[in-house]
Amino acid sequence: MKVDTRHHTVEVEMDEFCGALQAHELQALWKISKELMKPVPAPKTRAWLWRWDEVYPLAQEAGRLITLERGGDRRVLAFANPGLQGAPFTSTTLWGAYQYLGPGETAPAHRHTPSAIRFILRGSGAYTTVDGDACDMEPGDLVLTPNWMWHDHNSSANEPIVWFDGLDLPLATTLDAIFFENHPLKSQPVDERNRSERLVTALGLRELPTTAQKPARLLRYKRADVDRALDELHRQKGGPMVSLEYFDPLTGEHVVPTFACEMHRIFPGARTSTRRKVGSSIYVVFSGRGSSIINGQRFDWSAGDTFVTPSWAAIDHEAVEPADLFSVSDRPVLQALGLYRETLVEEGQKATSVFSAQSPATAAVRA
Amino acid sequence: MKVDTRHHTVEVEMDEFCGALQAHELQALWKISKELMKPVPAPKTRAWLWRWDEVYPLAQEAGRLITLERGGDRRVLAFANPGLQGAPFTSTTLWGAYQYLGPGETAPAHRHTPSAIRFILRGSGAYTTVDGDACDMEPGDLVLTPNWMWHDHNSSANEPIVWFDGLDLPLATTLDAIFFENHPLKSQPVDERNRSERLVTALGLRELPTTAQKPARLLRYKRADVDRALDELHRQKGGPMVSLEYFDPLTGEHVVPTFACEMHRIFPGARTSTRRKVGSSIYVVFSGRGSSIINGQRFDWSAGDTFVTPSWAAIDHEAVEPADLFSVSDRPVLQALGLYRETLVEEGQKATSVFSAQSPATAAVRA
Amino acid sequence: MKVDTRHHTVEVEMDEFCGALQAHELQALWKISKELMKPVPAPKTRAWLWRWDEVYPLAQEAGRLITLERGGDRRVLAFANPGLQGAPFTSTTLWGAYQYLGPGETAPAHRHTPSAIRFILRGSGAYTTVDGDACDMEPGDLVLTPNWMWHDHNSSANEPIVWFDGLDLPLATTLDAIFFENHPLKSQPVDERNRSERLVTALGLRELPTTAQKPARLLRYKRADVDRALDELHRQKGGPMVSLEYFDPLTGEHVVPTFACEMHRIFPGARTSTRRKVGSSIYVVFSGRGSSIINGQRFDWSAGDTFVTPSWAAIDHEAVEPADLFSVSDRPVLQALGLYRETLVEEGQKATSVFSAQSPATAAVRA
Amino acid sequence: MKVDTRHHTVEVEMDEFCGALQAHELQALWKISKELMKPVPAPKTRAWLWRWDEVYPLAQEAGRLITLERGGDRRVLAFANPGLQGAPFTSTTLWGAYQYLGPGETAPAHRHTPSAIRFILRGSGAYTTVDGDACDMEPGDLVLTPNWMWHDHNSSANEPIVWFDGLDLPLATTLDAIFFENHPLKSQPVDERNRSERLVTALGLRELPTTAQKPARLLRYKRADVDRALDELHRQKGGPMVSLEYFDPLTGEHVVPTFACEMHRIFPGARTSTRRKVGSSIYVVFSGRGSSIINGQRFDWSAGDTFVTPSWAAIDHEAVEPADLFSVSDRPVLQALGLYRETLVEEGQKATSVFSAQSPATAAVRA
Repeated sequence: MKVDTRHHTVEVEMDEFCGALQAHELQALWKISKELMKPVPAPKTRAWLWRWDEVYPLAQEAGRLITLERGGDRRVLAFANPGLQGAPFTSTTLWGAYQYLGPGETAPAHRHTPSAIRFILRGSGAYTTVDGDACDMEPGDLVLTPNWMWHDHNSSANEPIVWFDGLDLPLATTLDAIFFENHPLKSQPVDERNRSERLVTALGLRELPTTAQKPARLLRYKRADVDRALDELHRQKGGPMVSLEYFDPLTGEHVVPTFACEMHRIFPGARTSTRRKVGSSIYVVFSGRGSSIINGQRFDWSAGDTFVTPSWAAIDHEAVEPADLFSVSDRPVLQALGLYRETLVEEGQKATSVFSAQSPATAAVRA
Repeated sequence: MKVDTRHHTVEVEMDEFCGALQAHELQALWKISKELMKPVPAPKTRAWLWRWDEVYPLAQEAGRLITLERGGDRRVLAFANPGLQGAPFTSTTLWGAYQYLGPGETAPAHRHTPSAIRFILRGSGAYTTVDGDACDMEPGDLVLTPNWMWHDHNSSANEPIVWFDGLDLPLATTLDAIFFENHPLKSQPVDERNRSERLVTALGLRELPTTAQKPARLLRYKRADVDRALDELHRQKGGPMVSLEYFDPLTGEHVVPTFACEMHRIFPGARTSTRRKVGSSIYVVFSGRGSSIINGQRFDWSAGDTFVTPSWAAIDHEAVEPADLFSVSDRPVLQALGLYRETLVEEGQKATSVFSAQSPATAAVRA
Repeated sequence: MKVDTRHHTVEVEMDEFCGALQAHELQALWKISKELMKPVPAPKTRAWLWRWDEVYPLAQEAGRLITLERGGDRRVLAFANPGLQGAPFTSTTLWGAYQYLGPGETAPAHRHTPSAIRFILRGSGAYTTVDGDACDMEPGDLVLTPNWMWHDHNSSANEPIVWFDGLDLPLATTLDAIFFENHPLKSQPVDERNRSERLVTALGLRELPTTAQKPARLLRYKRADVDRALDELHRQKGGPMVSLEYFDPLTGEHVVPTFACEMHRIFPGARTSTRRKVGSSIYVVFSGRGSSIINGQRFDWSAGDTFVTPSWAAIDHEAVEPADLFSVSDRPVLQALGLYRETLVEEGQKATSVFSAQSPATAAVRA
Repeated sequence: MKVDTRHHTVEVEMDEFCGALQAHELQALWKISKELMKPVPAPKTRAWLWRWDEVYPLAQEAGRLITLERGGDRRVLAFANPGLQGAPFTSTTLWGAYQYLGPGETAPAHRHTPSAIRFILRGSGAYTTVDGDACDMEPGDLVLTPNWMWHDHNSSANEPIVWFDGLDLPLATTLDAIFFENHPLKSQPVDERNRSERLVTALGLRELPTTAQKPARLLRYKRADVDRALDELHRQKGGPMVSLEYFDPLTGEHVVPTFACEMHRIFPGARTSTRRKVGSSIYVVFSGRGSSIINGQRFDWSAGDTFVTPSWAAIDHEAVEPADLFSVSDRPVLQALGLYRETLVEEGQKATSVFSAQSPATAAVRA
């Protein structure tokens, strides 16, 4: 009986103790340590795919239902990861969405500290004005609206325009670093059309700095250039997949500090190697058809589909038809903070770490 | 009647449409845009203070109840911000906790990609071994266990040891970048005691690099040095508060890439100026007594208390007795990503931004 | 008499003392300090111009006389600044020369730590192989042979080829940092023609780094790109002169760490503003006609002429016909070492310093 | 006879041709190429040693003869390398000299773009004021007067003061980057004594930047700190020699961008390994006795002696008594420009290159 009593006493004490912790906004590490730090990343972000055949009709329906009076100037459908408990985020760091701009519509001018990119999927004749520079948007183009630059979207098209929005919004939310401001005008005045393309015209040539003026910055990356670069890279390297990164051609930096933009061309006939990397990516199928295996689960995709890959997932791809996949990735953040790793998964073997976690000193070196 | 019907129809359509979005894991931006991007940061992290008088008895109780068999080797009480819906995090980027090591106890060796620091509050005679270097821990000392370095805590004291643990755990969780590994031994072998202090002995002097060996790195920052530096800084600058930053004395970098460690000395007789900054901080009152006003709410504090300040909160301090406040801050992350701002709030005036959001290029410059 | 004697004694003592200094390889600063440090730079390098009409016939004569057996594989005429006491250098940091390659000739393969560039003036059909990459050379093209890369020049032309050689040879000589090695073969094997142009194909796009392979590097900058970029820049900025800098389009760095390559387009109708800068430049007139005033001395130039400008000279230009001037400048060295300054000379006024000497910290920031 | 005539003709032609080149300030590379680029550096700087026993009496004599009226405010004896054809330079990049300041004397205030350091050898009671900060100078201390900072030297001693001056004057001369300005006052006003030592008080602690004020900078490195650091380093590493580098403790940068300051402690009983490096060094024997073998030539040295080592010389040292050698080296320049190499010379073997010439990208990484 004594034992029971003592046992009982300890149990009561423990209960009381736990209650006291909770009452004081404290949590006991020994109860949660295994959950907090697992051997490898255990993301909440789930591998997921959104089909064009399902999303596009909903975007069209939004075009019809959500008139400008009903909020149609923000006619954006966000890919909400089912693992993230209702948050409108595609991963814990990245936001992906499809924006649908009807003929003649305008999404009004504002600026915010989250950086955004637009990757155009369908429709011709829209432009985004970025700090006075009206950047044309054609399918396959990438247009940047970096941190705190004014931007508005405008359509002079007869057809609807659809593009992919990529933002660091979930990360900026976690960092509590979001500032937002509406422009006094619905559309900011256009100083010039496609100015950035004209100022940054040639590979490895830039204006000699003589004055304190704001340096030029490339804001639009054209489809034709990407297409040609992928072609050439494949001719040089061969293999089932070649991958490009978009970067600032005047400084060598990432397009924005918070995520990378990439394009992958996959060729039929062979699976790519299987890799793991820290951090998530959102892939947008620009063209072609194929499938990806993400942690053992197969996702078939074709043009217009979007899928997200969680951190440390084992991933490979195989094309049925030649395919171009645009992607955004939080790799620059992980590299800047010394937290990036990448691994090639050999068949039938354990993963071999290609890059290990870095010391702050080496992480400071440009990746 | 017609109007009603049409209205009714639209309502039904909208309901059906919203249902369809939800069924496809999509969210409508036009419904949430104001919530997602507010004019200034709207953190979930709440200003909060934990009192030593309440926390320490609970830590003692944990020392009694939570024996080594019951998880006492991780006898850590985490400051769980009441705004974060039950997550054991002090802010969305920072983890603060008090660790209680009983006489003769050991917290076993492991390593992880989150970086940690220990700021010693009470008790003498413990040490943390970091990659073979046994670092003594005395009250007011700061000991680093950076990203992926082996560490274990050991006490040869007759008294309990209490320290503050600061980690980037919430951020590393968001980034899905956590790797964890237990050491094969409970305590790793000690190569040497306080090796880093001996290798990094003097201001502005370092070994001339001739070999490929791993460079020395300072792992312990002693109280006496901090005390002297604060004294001197105040003698030079005067004013109600002086603030130091701990950094790597061989490279000029932050102690770890994911947060800064700081010490603030506040003198009685005047309030400090009021400031806002992007990002959160956890303050640990090492000594003294005073109060802080955080977004208009007053928090009185004395030695051993811990409080957290949310992003963009207007903050000022006033000491009743001379006070030393240690703090950790996510500023390095925000600076690396071009998202840092800081503002002096003039009395009776609107805030004036001291630093505005930076372009990627300027953000790349060492802050 | 006493005074005389004493005076005499001092004189004798001084003579003896000076002799003793000299005998011990010592020099007295008080005698030379004014000479050593003048208020502003007092370069030995003289402003000088070499006329195409005089140099080209000598290059042709060298082509005839200096057969391969007589050293014709290094058929290079160096612009030897008359201020540099017989040294074969164009300034104290830069070497400029015209190289003349006869039809079918080869300048054999070697490598050296001085970095070199070739700017092609006349003739079509030659190529330089750089680490296995055969780079075609057409008039107006710039081809790089950076520090320690194998290179050989080859002509498959029916006409002679003339280009400008720019090197950091005088600086590398002062630094005693020259290493030189002949390749085992006269011409290194060609892996591929114009590989670098194919690997670096598009503005702001680069291969995603997945392997440890040597990254691509642009080695040839084509005339057509430069022409287009100058055109565009002038359309944007207007004014009597626009200036471009060539740089590494993958990293944003200078083409080589020891000098910059620039192109200036000057339009008739107005003089440019007058400027001073620290460091020397060599200008090669690619096309057009005009004049430059260098420290008050007028130099008329037309296509094929070369001239050198000394440090801190007041310089302005005026075109008679639209003119393109290629130049090399030691500015990157001065910036890396915190020694760069630049000044606009207002008419009838004293010079105003635009950039002052920098502290090491700011100098470390990329200019 | 025909052959002779033709031969004669060619000779005449060649003579005429060479004359024509000379008349046009041109030089033929094929005649000088072997001289210009040798397989390894062929410095004009000769290994040389100046003996204290010879230099100090001359400095004393200068103190007696060269009164203030005769230029005694610049009473500096420069070590003029006999290889440099009468130039008052110790190597092609570095200037070394002994400065002798009599009791109560002042060397008047000025500033210049060459950076200078003072390493104190003998005498107590002098100070150098640097931008208002009066830095005490005791034997073994290092005091910096970086690029463009006001400085004047003052003695309140009863004895003469002797120190070593190290400057980048030869390099700054080659770069034509020298600016010089006298201060309106003979001695600038002293804001404070040893301010920099008080502002930079502790390892790895710096003021948190909140304002735009000029950051603190350490200007004096004390003998006692160096002594302790050498001691500790030797205790850790052992071996016949340990070497420290002085650096900016707030940024991790070199003390000045144009040269490094180092201290080497050599212990009796064994020769050091033999090494080559690109670039020259000046060594000042602070204490002890021993010898160095420089390219096979032996130099015996004791306290107060100074010697210079040319680029790429094979060098080793051996102490007879424990010795401390201070040195300045142009290594930072070579590293910044991608021209540094270093080699361990194995006995009876060919040299093995430890670091090869770097690409611009890697050279940009902090060394």
